[in-house]
Amino acid sequence: MDQINVRWYVEDVCAHSSPVLIAGLPGVGHVGKLVADHLVRVLSAVKVAEVTSILFPPQMYLSEDAVLRLPRNELFFAPESANNPAVLLLAGDCQSTTPDGHYLLADAYIRIFEQLGVKRIYTLGGYGVGRLVDNPRVLAALSSSALKDEVLGAGAILDKDEPVGGIIGLAGLLITLGRLSGMEGIVLLGETSGYLVDPVSSTSVLNVLEKLTGIKADRTDLTELASQMMTEVSAIASTIQKNNTDDLNYIG
Amino acid sequence: MDQINVRWYVEDVCAHSSPVLIAGLPGVGHVGKLVADHLVRVLSAVKVAEVTSILFPPQMYLSEDAVLRLPRNELFFAPESANNPAVLLLAGDCQSTTPDGHYLLADAYIRIFEQLGVKRIYTLGGYGVGRLVDNPRVLAALSSSALKDEVLGAGAILDKDEPVGGIIGLAGLLITLGRLSGMEGIVLLGETSGYLVDPVSSTSVLNVLEKLTGIKADRTDLTELASQMMTEVSAIASTIQKNNTDDLNYIG
Amino acid sequence: MDQINVRWYVEDVCAHSSPVLIAGLPGVGHVGKLVADHLVRVLSAVKVAEVTSILFPPQMYLSEDAVLRLPRNELFFAPESANNPAVLLLAGDCQSTTPDGHYLLADAYIRIFEQLGVKRIYTLGGYGVGRLVDNPRVLAALSSSALKDEVLGAGAILDKDEPVGGIIGLAGLLITLGRLSGMEGIVLLGETSGYLVDPVSSTSVLNVLEKLTGIKADRTDLTELASQMMTEVSAIASTIQKNNTDDLNYIG
Amino acid sequence: MDQINVRWYVEDVCAHSSPVLIAGLPGVGHVGKLVADHLVRVLSAVKVAEVTSILFPPQMYLSEDAVLRLPRNELFFAPESANNPAVLLLAGDCQSTTPDGHYLLADAYIRIFEQLGVKRIYTLGGYGVGRLVDNPRVLAALSSSALKDEVLGAGAILDKDEPVGGIIGLAGLLITLGRLSGMEGIVLLGETSGYLVDPVSSTSVLNVLEKLTGIKADRTDLTELASQMMTEVSAIASTIQKNNTDDLNYIG
Repeated sequence: MDQINVRWYVEDVCAHSSPVLIAGLPGVGHVGKLVADHLVRVLSAVKVAEVTSILFPPQMYLSEDAVLRLPRNELFFAPESANNPAVLLLAGDCQSTTPDGHYLLADAYIRIFEQLGVKRIYTLGGYGVGRLVDNPRVLAALSSSALKDEVLGAGAILDKDEPVGGIIGLAGLLITLGRLSGMEGIVLLGETSGYLVDPVSSTSVLNVLEKLTGIKADRTDLTELASQMMTEVSAIASTIQKNNTDDLNYIG
Repeated sequence: MDQINVRWYVEDVCAHSSPVLIAGLPGVGHVGKLVADHLVRVLSAVKVAEVTSILFPPQMYLSEDAVLRLPRNELFFAPESANNPAVLLLAGDCQSTTPDGHYLLADAYIRIFEQLGVKRIYTLGGYGVGRLVDNPRVLAALSSSALKDEVLGAGAILDKDEPVGGIIGLAGLLITLGRLSGMEGIVLLGETSGYLVDPVSSTSVLNVLEKLTGIKADRTDLTELASQMMTEVSAIASTIQKNNTDDLNYIG
Repeated sequence: MDQINVRWYVEDVCAHSSPVLIAGLPGVGHVGKLVADHLVRVLSAVKVAEVTSILFPPQMYLSEDAVLRLPRNELFFAPESANNPAVLLLAGDCQSTTPDGHYLLADAYIRIFEQLGVKRIYTLGGYGVGRLVDNPRVLAALSSSALKDEVLGAGAILDKDEPVGGIIGLAGLLITLGRLSGMEGIVLLGETSGYLVDPVSSTSVLNVLEKLTGIKADRTDLTELASQMMTEVSAIASTIQKNNTDDLNYIG
Repeated sequence: MDQINVRWYVEDVCAHSSPVLIAGLPGVGHVGKLVADHLVRVLSAVKVAEVTSILFPPQMYLSEDAVLRLPRNELFFAPESANNPAVLLLAGDCQSTTPDGHYLLADAYIRIFEQLGVKRIYTLGGYGVGRLVDNPRVLAALSSSALKDEVLGAGAILDKDEPVGGIIGLAGLLITLGRLSGMEGIVLLGETSGYLVDPVSSTSVLNVLEKLTGIKADRTDLTELASQMMTEVSAIASTIQKNNTDDLNYIG
């Protein structure tokens, strides 16, 4: 049993297209995962490869009819079209269970990306700020200063002191290890409370990502999730406010 | 010292019989372990192999006369009879101490099962629900939708949203890795509080398992354990109720 | 850098003597360590080998003049004399930092013991009972029932239900892995509170060990430590009692 | 992907100079790191090598323009001058995430030091005492008693009972493993509260280090940091005192 197992579904699918790679795996607020899963759907991306690993949790997932499957990361491909460049998407259930596993998986992914001709990587995630955010900012981090103007032009913020403590996990490692293999890379992190799955933050990240990549994709489902979330948050907020008022009446 | 050590007691014991494999190891409420240990006894299954591993806890067990032994998993075989098909039973003291250890052990077991001609795997366990359950449901999970009707017909429930978070540990992994080697697999999880060793839940799981496998085995000892447990739980419940009433009197 | 490093100080020191092995490493109440360290001193045992390992904590010890040294386990030898059979002593600072490390170290030790002609192993430790014990019992566990009468005759207790949960760490593993290499083995565990380093419990263990091995060694220093401890415990106990009486006066 | 990766920037830079090695990595109060980083700056040391490792946390750092980089340890060299002997400095972001990783990294570093002709190692760190210290003592630990007079003469304290529990992490391991390769070694630990980054303690350590090595380096920036810290601590202390007085007034 190998530490990391790659099963190919389609070979050579993106030959000659130098696709951009967009990675969104579970993390704070599932901000990156929501965007990556959304793009897989709206770009009708086809599955290229599946990665399973003893570095993933020993936690089997249930699909329709309670059929079990291994936890996995998946690679999807959407060829160039009027609305998007050639895109590879890395999505999935989980990240490594151990610190060194993040390095081993990132290294395996970079070797796959090389093989598929990737020249630029975007990794997406959330940045937990501990409070609800109305208009989430998008923080970026780069493989090189050469990307600065492009990223600022797309509406992201560059601040070497945010996130405090740097970027933990695969999102950061794909960029640093990718650079060692000559790939450009941009991390995009949407501000999020850290308490909830946050499609509002995902929408902010998608805005910046679309400007950077030229993707123009239907976003009905993501917008719907986001407005649902905002309705729920408003309902909670007014309940809290009403209770506070009631308390005052009671005291009075 | 190998990571996983298999010691064979009987070779070729189940040649030509394509035994079903039933695995019940320690877990929530020891629901699966109770059933597997019960079947080893009532089917007079003989020990085929013993597995020890540095992936198991470094915790030695005491048997009669305080003789020490390594923690272990054991494989037993009962040949086909009027009351049961040919059955292999995987029972034991423990599971892996690490996340990746679950993968390594499951992989080793699947290779043993292949060698022994196993075509179908049942793994048994508990599903903790955080409250006492009078009539525990049995949740199933499958290697394939093709098993759906058979499992529903035996009284189990299929729900892709239960257990929440999927199935953790060897019970799930044996099914997903078994499928990669062409084996059918069914997980059966009995509802249980999660606070107690639960022979009542084990009885529910055994009911479903017997319908699926055709095993008809004496269950006096398991029934006895179950009624003992129900007596104890009732006693605790009436003590609590009495105390509550006393409290009210006192307050009154 | 090897996982386990053995540095030999004396080769072939115990050739032809089939020494008994006595192991006492840090653990509950340091009961086993106190006995092993005591025997090294009173038997004037010479250092045969030193074991260092990346499985030990990365915690360097200070000796005289604050000179640093690696954490280690040490093997000492005392040749047969009027007061003792040929004895190998395994003593040291620490045990493994990981569950699987206990297996790896125990396995390495058994291979060393084989090389040195060991036929019988005694491992010493404490059994935490959560309260102060006036006359600590000594619980034993065995490699085989054949040792039962001998161990009972020496005053130890055999009870398959104590310690609850079995024996964790090297003390148990040396016995189970030793048996696989044809060695007899006896664990001796002195009852101890679990809160204090406990030379009283060590004295009880030494009593049983001397009967089993025929060692007759000066025990002035161990007795002194034990009576110091009992004086301190009495002082604490009367302080507590006095405080309770004071409290009552105050309440009165 | 290797476990430890060394990238050389300059080869043979310190040939024939037998440099002293000074290591200051993150730890209690960042006492050692502050000194090492300070010396890199004031001695204008050039980068000789960079170490990255899967044993480091999977936490990427941001530099100017939010450009990401791997966590790393770095080796710098300052050639002999009027104010200092030839010096190699080991500085960096982090230590190992696992106990055995400390051993593996220390071993890799010692092999690098050998290659560079190092004969003496100084490792710097903090010793947490749980309270603010006005005049931090500097505790030393040695590779050999032969260094005793030299270290005492430089104002450090040698006490085999401090730090209680010995020295944990790379600072101690570099000395013990270095000795196995024939290197002399001295650990210098500045007393520090353990609650704050502590340039005051670093100044005490630097005082001793300069006496031992003959380094005479501008220390404006370190002194500035230290007086800033003392001003802040005084401000906090008088706020606390004022609050206490206010409380008394209120009560009165």
